[in-house]
Amino acid sequence: MSLVVVGSVAYDGVETPHGKVDRMLGGAATYIALAASYFTPVKIVAVVGDDFAQEDVDLLSSRNIDLAGLERVPGKTFFWAGVYSADMNDRTTLRTDLNVFAGFNPKLPESYRSAPYLLLGNIQPALQQSVLAQMNGLKLAGGDTMNYWINDYRGELLETLRGWDFLLINDSEARLLSAEHNLRRAAAKILEMGPHTLVIKRGEHGAVLFRRGAHFMAPGYLLEDVFDPTGAGDSFAGGFIGYLAGNGVQASNANVDFAELRRAVIYGSVMGSFCCESFGVDRFRNITRHEIEARYQEFHSCTAF
Amino acid sequence: MSLVVVGSVAYDGVETPHGKVDRMLGGAATYIALAASYFTPVKIVAVVGDDFAQEDVDLLSSRNIDLAGLERVPGKTFFWAGVYSADMNDRTTLRTDLNVFAGFNPKLPESYRSAPYLLLGNIQPALQQSVLAQMNGLKLAGGDTMNYWINDYRGELLETLRGWDFLLINDSEARLLSAEHNLRRAAAKILEMGPHTLVIKRGEHGAVLFRRGAHFMAPGYLLEDVFDPTGAGDSFAGGFIGYLAGNGVQASNANVDFAELRRAVIYGSVMGSFCCESFGVDRFRNITRHEIEARYQEFHSCTAF
Repeated sequence: MSLVVVGSVAYDGVETPHGKVDRMLGGAATYIALAASYFTPVKIVAVVGDDFAQEDVDLLSSRNIDLAGLERVPGKTFFWAGVYSADMNDRTTLRTDLNVFAGFNPKLPESYRSAPYLLLGNIQPALQQSVLAQMNGLKLAGGDTMNYWINDYRGELLETLRGWDFLLINDSEARLLSAEHNLRRAAAKILEMGPHTLVIKRGEHGAVLFRRGAHFMAPGYLLEDVFDPTGAGDSFAGGFIGYLAGNGVQASNANVDFAELRRAVIYGSVMGSFCCESFGVDRFRNITRHEIEARYQEFHSCTAF
Repeated sequence: MSLVVVGSVAYDGVETPHGKVDRMLGGAATYIALAASYFTPVKIVAVVGDDFAQEDVDLLSSRNIDLAGLERVPGKTFFWAGVYSADMNDRTTLRTDLNVFAGFNPKLPESYRSAPYLLLGNIQPALQQSVLAQMNGLKLAGGDTMNYWINDYRGELLETLRGWDFLLINDSEARLLSAEHNLRRAAAKILEMGPHTLVIKRGEHGAVLFRRGAHFMAPGYLLEDVFDPTGAGDSFAGGFIGYLAGNGVQASNANVDFAELRRAVIYGSVMGSFCCESFGVDRFRNITRHEIEARYQEFHSCTAF
């Protein structure tokens, strides 16, 4: 079933110990949409400048991603550049040019409004809320946020979170949002803020899915080579919501099939792990559904006891 | 079946954000033996000074640990003191007084030599090798080491490792031993050094079991309160080898039942997690086999998909 993805479509400059790319397609919505497109039809909502290349439009179209909501305005596309540490566990931002993204005010095409699934990428909480308000008949909605909104837009963020089914954040964001270092305590507090489902991403150490009174732990896939971790968290989000949307999983009275959520976390982990195997979105140019299923089975055989 | 445990029996001074204890029972062999004692009969080989307290002898005896190999010599027992960081992921050693441990030259009582299982705690590699040479009819033998031996006694250590079935080390030790940052590559190199089974402990992030061409990942148990992580890695080792010894698991031509090894890693994780719930060895004063089984089941329900 259709999934609407809202967030940044951008150009990135990335340097890792494996190489350097000055400018390539990036942005949270791009990674989320590409990863989700293997599971379900995706409709993107984003803004780009008049420098946005036709080959990048073509890549998204080749994955059958609906671009009716990809607004194109005069100016330059959002640009981010960063460099990773030797072990790739840290990165330093070298440049953030918001460009046309600074004026992003997402307006959903009529054809998007009845889509049953919504993934709100990391943008200003009030904008996330305005998107949610434009949708009708949602089965499952949620998204991501980041330190900046947690620190400086806390009230707005808490107001926004009240309407979400799920929240996907990393461990440092969970600690900041809850003011609790311990992840189990942090999760308990966050589950009081609105979402009935919380996924805490822990990078190479995997992810933990929390619901009231229960949790599920997925280990990080052990890659032999990590070329570029950029977008891995967003690819996780795309795999997670894409799988749920593809299977028509629904939240009613905060009840969601826990077994389906567990599988969604593994598919998220699978897509995040693939993302790291090439620079930028490159891995999504050739990945096959067969490879996805094989890695899902590998997760099973590496964790079952 | 009987398990011989060799290593340090010590007194520790520990400070964590939850409190401070100036002097309490510690040492690798102590934690390994206590954790293993829930699964199998344990025989300890260690040296203590004439200050070693009767109540500590009594605790070990109460777990039916054979103390025939606990040598008592004039002088003071090995003393270590350290302080943990606020998040308990780092610790600083404040004091290391080897005392009688400096002269430790393990001699096995006749009654120990035919025990089928051997766990060599972290001591000088040549001493580990001399213990192995004193045993007959081993089904499974292995142990631990540390940065100091990897750096300064490398040749001796590599010679010693050749005779082991399994090696249990943490991630930084695995990287140092293999000169590979990536854990999968590190494991592949270490499995060429002798042991057919490698367990890499990752603290709060769990553990990974490696065999040639296969691996198994166990997540870290999510504790709500970590009082004192001292001894958690040794408790893991005790649970791991204790389970295998209790079930009579045997290595023949490097073949070990992989399903049993997976369960052993989970029992190791269970014992390591209990260890962190109280200061020092305190949790081992009251833990029950029922609690151990319940936590094993919890690991299952938190990881199955």
